[in-house]
Parts: sequence; structure tokens; C-alpha cells
Amino acid sequence: MPLIVQKFGGTSLAGAEKIHRAARRAIRAKLDGHHVVLVVSAMGKSTDELLALSQEVSPDPPKRELDMLLTTGEQVSIALVAMAIHAAGHEAISLTAAQLGLLTDGVHMRARIQRISRDRIDKELSAGKIVIVAGFQGIDAGGEITTMGRGASDTTAAALAAVLDAQVCEIYTDVDGIYSADPRIVPKARKIDKISYDVILEMAATGAGVMHARAIEFGKKFSVPIHVRSSMTDVKGTLIMHETPDMEAIAVQGVTLTEDLAVVSLNGVPNTAGAAARIFAEVARHHILVDDIVQIIYDGGKFANISFSTNAADANQARTICEGLVAESEVGAVEIDEGVSKVSAIGVGMRSHAGIASTMFDALSQAEVNIENISTSELVISCIVRQEDGPKALRYIHEAFGLDASNGANGAA
Amino acid sequence: MPLIVQKFGGTSLAGAEKIHRAARRAIRAKLDGHHVVLVVSAMGKSTDELLALSQEVSPDPPKRELDMLLTTGEQVSIALVAMAIHAAGHEAISLTAAQLGLLTDGVHMRARIQRISRDRIDKELSAGKIVIVAGFQGIDAGGEITTMGRGASDTTAAALAAVLDAQVCEIYTDVDGIYSADPRIVPKARKIDKISYDVILEMAATGAGVMHARAIEFGKKFSVPIHVRSSMTDVKGTLIMHETPDMEAIAVQGVTLTEDLAVVSLNGVPNTAGAAARIFAEVARHHILVDDIVQIIYDGGKFANISFSTNAADANQARTICEGLVAESEVGAVEIDEGVSKVSAIGVGMRSHAGIASTMFDALSQAEVNIENISTSELVISCIVRQEDGPKALRYIHEAFGLDASNGANGAA
Repeated sequence: MPLIVQKFGGTSLAGAEKIHRAARRAIRAKLDGHHVVLVVSAMGKSTDELLALSQEVSPDPPKRELDMLLTTGEQVSIALVAMAIHAAGHEAISLTAAQLGLLTDGVHMRARIQRISRDRIDKELSAGKIVIVAGFQGIDAGGEITTMGRGASDTTAAALAAVLDAQVCEIYTDVDGIYSADPRIVPKARKIDKISYDVILEMAATGAGVMHARAIEFGKKFSVPIHVRSSMTDVKGTLIMHETPDMEAIAVQGVTLTEDLAVVSLNGVPNTAGAAARIFAEVARHHILVDDIVQIIYDGGKFANISFSTNAADANQARTICEGLVAESEVGAVEIDEGVSKVSAIGVGMRSHAGIASTMFDALSQAEVNIENISTSELVISCIVRQEDGPKALRYIHEAFGLDASNGANGAA
Repeated sequence: MPLIVQKFGGTSLAGAEKIHRAARRAIRAKLDGHHVVLVVSAMGKSTDELLALSQEVSPDPPKRELDMLLTTGEQVSIALVAMAIHAAGHEAISLTAAQLGLLTDGVHMRARIQRISRDRIDKELSAGKIVIVAGFQGIDAGGEITTMGRGASDTTAAALAAVLDAQVCEIYTDVDGIYSADPRIVPKARKIDKISYDVILEMAATGAGVMHARAIEFGKKFSVPIHVRSSMTDVKGTLIMHETPDMEAIAVQGVTLTEDLAVVSLNGVPNTAGAAARIFAEVARHHILVDDIVQIIYDGGKFANISFSTNAADANQARTICEGLVAESEVGAVEIDEGVSKVSAIGVGMRSHAGIASTMFDALSQAEVNIENISTSELVISCIVRQEDGPKALRYIHEAFGLDASNGANGAA
């Protein structure tokens, strides 16, 4: 019998009515002839409430005890969803990570899955039950309760879908799919029907809060199609899958905006071996998150300008570190460019379509937006722009690549 | 090193401040040179809130899923108490029933303890940690999560104290001990310093909501002294222990009032073998809780009057059942006496003191309270009285047995 994994996020489980809705969806999939495994998050804002409770007790609680605390949220959800399915006259059973046998390493709050046992799930599915699994949580070899980071219920779902050889992993959420741009910024953004794992990973990395990246990596590695869709409607959402020729027919599938950045530049750095390595080792040691890195050499290769973007909040610390390094070597200068954003265009079709970069620069020129740094990779072109220009830049690029909803040129639509 | 088990109920953990107070008490016991094991209930009203949540989803949820849901309350508490102890600079570790190895049978919502492993607790105590155990919950042989009934955190504490050979099991609550009568009804009630397991069991059975009966049975069976005391003060509470001679010096240790009863009487029942058995089998089959049973034969043993008390809410159903039985045998008559209460006097000294019954009847006569049914057992004398007379009856009996606080005649004081 084909198997479906359905994952419901917190907003899709906020209150009895939504819990019944999720239950009905699972029952329908079962009546359609599937084995059904549900993965659920904590209801609504309950994880935030539990975190607030812990903060009242201790400003810096042990991570082990935070995991002990937070995993109760998902345990509440699995019990209630199982009750809802029973109330509708169908068989269901809830399982914690310990009962299921979802083994992780022992790193509290950011554990990684090591092994998932099929035995218990197979037994319950064979008995005709819908199985409801607590997302986000795991158990280590010593029986300690772990969690895998915020949003990791997606990862639980994708990993289970891989282990159980699921037909599809459905991610039910409060939006009806993944959009070509954030609709709050680009009103003409449209829903993407199909998109590749690689493109969605790049979109996630460039500011689109679509899904937990590790979930997508699981899907890619084990070839599980992931269907991101609305818990409120039956409309098809966005299918994340391996590349197909029709994806390549479209140059760019989505555009993203990353705000609140700063660019730190080291100018006139002697271009000796290991210069960049030394800089970024020092930056990483201070846990400063580095986004794009660009280096340009000049003066016959004797000097380099090195530039990287980072969160605005980390910018001052990053500058201090770089100024220290420059002072040590007694050469170069540090500049910081605050109040900037990054606009990116992403798509597999970029490889085969010429002139993508010039289309993007042309769009920005028409928008009268000045381009600062530029970086490109196989699937992405990114430009740093002034923060105030970001939304306008995004709308112009979106239109230039034929993504606007009224345009109708999107081959994947 | 001597070991103490401390149990904190929901009211003693309602909010961060009370959690820190519980943590400080555990730390003090540790600094005093004890190994310390805490058993905690769910915070404040959280069990009721979880039950309300389940009712929103399903009017009749599977018991397994209720256990899955309700055990999250204690899991939240253990994590927060561990955090509070850490925040105060001491080592602590929280343990679920599964992690501890508290094995029960598989009867959801009223499971019974089968075995408790010492291994994990011993290991953590040896490492210098305060161990915090989730009360109320267990795990069955198949890894299913169970609970042992409302109030069963007391039982978890007493059972752990037995297994760990604890010096004492301290029950921290919102009252400062067990009283000779309910102080809301008898203002002169006074705190009992020492009381036997048997007397407290009888008091619990006759309406005093002091402690989970199974906890007291554990204490008795394994000779663990149980100290019921306030979480808000350092005043000594009530010590529950085996009988001592000074307990026997007092005729009566406590008086209780059970309200909202009804007495069902079957008069003129032919006194044949099995008559009573047939009646109570039928009553039990309808899950009607029967309190005291009294039977008196007459007419040379040919007939019997059988009478039993039950909750007012069950009275009508009980009458219907009895009328059916009487109609079958075509003899006898059923009477129902509604709106009555039971006053009881309880104490181990009752065995050796003559005239206890007459003291009680005399007190009721002085109170001008008419006595209906009477029943006595080794440690208890009970009289059924009109409900409106109950509080006055209790006060007169309390005074007659020398229990009033101003009296000073209580040998155990």
C-alpha cells in the first residue's frame, strides 16, 4: 500500500477546530488507500510559551532541561490529534520519538538524526492505524530526550518519509505554497508549481523562510518529493523534487530579499597565501555569521579587496575584529557599509540561459537602484543594494524575469 | 548518606517563585548531608487545563492518549525545577518514568507500580546531583506511557522512598499538616503531630482529603515515615508512621464528615443465603459506589433489614435497582433516605478505651442531633445524621473526645 507522510505545523494545529481539520485530512488520505503517518509540531505558540516559562525560572537553563521542557509541546499535539481521529471513528496511535525509535546524537537543542526504526510504525500501520509522530524530538543512545532545532518537525517528516519510502511528504502550513517572491513585497508574486531541491535550498539560504533546510536535504538525498501546501484548502501547493527539463526552461524561478545586512570590506590587503583564511577563521571564532564573500585582486595580483556581508547586528563586532587584523599587519583599511540589503535571483535555468546577469543589472538600472557588491554562483545572482531600495529592486527583477502573475510567461505554471 | 524523598504538589509549584522555593528546600536538604530525590506534580491547574483541552477535541478520548497528554504536565515541572536548582548553582537532573525505569502494568489512567529500578537514580545521586522525578506517570513493559490516577504523585513519592530506603518521605502541600477535623467546619480543630498509617487510611476513606490512599499503603508496607507539611513554612507537619504507645493513649485522633449521602434500605428481605450478595453484585454491576453496609435480622432470623449508604447522585439509580430486585422476589420494600451525612470518629485508641460509642452518642444527644444508622469497625464509629445537622454534630464530637485546641488534653500534642 502506498504511504504518505503529512506534516502539520503549529499554526495548522492551533485549537480544536484545526486539529479536527488535520485529522480529517489524514483520514481522507487513508480512505483513498494510503498508509498515513502524521508528523506534528507543538500547537500554535506553545513552544514560545514554554520558552518564556523557562526564562522566568532561569536566564540560562541547561540545554538538556530545555529539551525536556520543549518536547512536551509536541507530545500534547500527538495525543490531541490521535483523539480527534478516534472521535471521527478511525484508529490512530500517537508515538513519541522514544516509542518510535528515532535516534539522534546527544547534542541537545541541535541534535542530528542517526537512525530511525521502522518496526513500531510498520506494526501500527499493518494494524490499520494512522500513526502520529511527535516532530522536532529525538532520543539519544542513552535514552536522553533531544531536539533538533526550531522548525525541525519538517526534518522529522522528511526523514520518516525517506525511511518509510513514502510516495510523498506533504508539508501543511498556513500558506498555499512557495512563491516566486515574498507576496508582501511583490504583490504580483505567484505560486511556484514545481521547484528543485537545489533551488529551494538557495532560496532558503537567501532569506525566504520556506522550510527547514535539513528537511530539503533529506528529501534530495532520498528522492522524496516534498509537497508544501495549505492546511486550509485542497488547492495543490508547491512540489519540491529533482530537476526536470521544464524547470530548466525557466531562467529564474524566484527572487529573494535579505534585509538588515552590512558589508565589511578590507581594502589593500597584501595578497599572500592564507590571508583570507586568517580573516575568516578569526570571524568564525567569534560566532559571526558570514553571508556572501567576494574578493577582487588588483595591482598585478599584489593586493586584494576582500568583502563580506553579515547581519547588521554583528557588523560592529566584525569591524573591530577586522581592524585588529589590519593593525597587526600594518597594511590595508577596513570599511563598513551599513543599511544594505541583498536581492537574489535563483533558478536552475540560469545555467543554460545567457544574459541572466545583464537582465538583472538592466532591471536595477531601470529601477534607478545603484548596485554595490555583486556575487554569482551556479544557481544564484546576488546584488547588494541600499536597504531602502530593496523592495523596489525586488519588484523590478521579478517583472524582468517574467515572473509576474499577470505575465503568464512562467513555463512551469 | 541518608536519603530524603520530597514531593511537591501542583499548588506548591504554581509559578516561578514557588518553583524556586521548592528548589531551595531541596538544596537545603542536600547541604544538610542528604541525598535528595524530588517527586513533582504538574504545575497549578495544568492537569485540569489539559483535560479541558482534550474535552474540546473529543468527549470520550482513548485512555492511552489521555495518558500521553496528561504526563506532559509533570514533564514540564521536572524540567523547570531542574532549571531552578541549576540557577542556584547546584547540580540536578530531571527524569521521566521511562528514563527512571518506573514500570507499571498497562492499565491506562489507573496503572499500578510493578517495579522501580534503582540504577539510574543511584548513578545520578552518586554524581552529586539532586534527582527530580515526574510523579503520577509510569511506563509499561511495552514502553507505553501510563498514569496512576489523580493524586498519584504521592504514590510515586512513597514508592520511591520505599525502594530507595529513604529516611523519610516529605509531602509538601498547601496546608501545614493533617487536622483532627476539617478546620472549615470545626474551628477548634488542631494539627495532629503523629498518626498511624491505619488511622489515616480510615480518615481518607471517611471523607478527609488528606493523601492518596495507595501512597499511605506503600508507606505502611515498607515502613517509610511520611511527613505531610507546608511548602510555605518550616513548621513541622504531621508524621504518618506505625502505631506507637502514645497514639493508643488517645481514644480518638480525628473526626470526619462525609456529606451528600443517601441511605437505601431494603426492609423485610427473606433472610436466605446469598440475599445480600445478590443485591450488592447487582449494585456493583452498575458502578454504584457503596459506602457503609448495615444488616439487622429480625423475627427469629427469618427476615433482614439491609441498608447501605451511597452518593446522593447515585441514590435514584440505586433505588431503581433495589426495587427491581424486590419486585422479582415479590417480598420486602425499598426505602430511601436522602439528604444525610455521616459523622465518624477514628483512632487506634478506640480498641482499648471503653465507652467510646457512648461518648459519641451522648455528644450527639447534647447537640440535639438525631442518630439514624450506626456502624462500627475496629478504628471507626460512624453515625448517619441529617445533612443539616452534620457540621454541628462534628463540632460536638470533636469537643467530646477532647480534641479541641483550647482543651489541651490531646496526649500527642
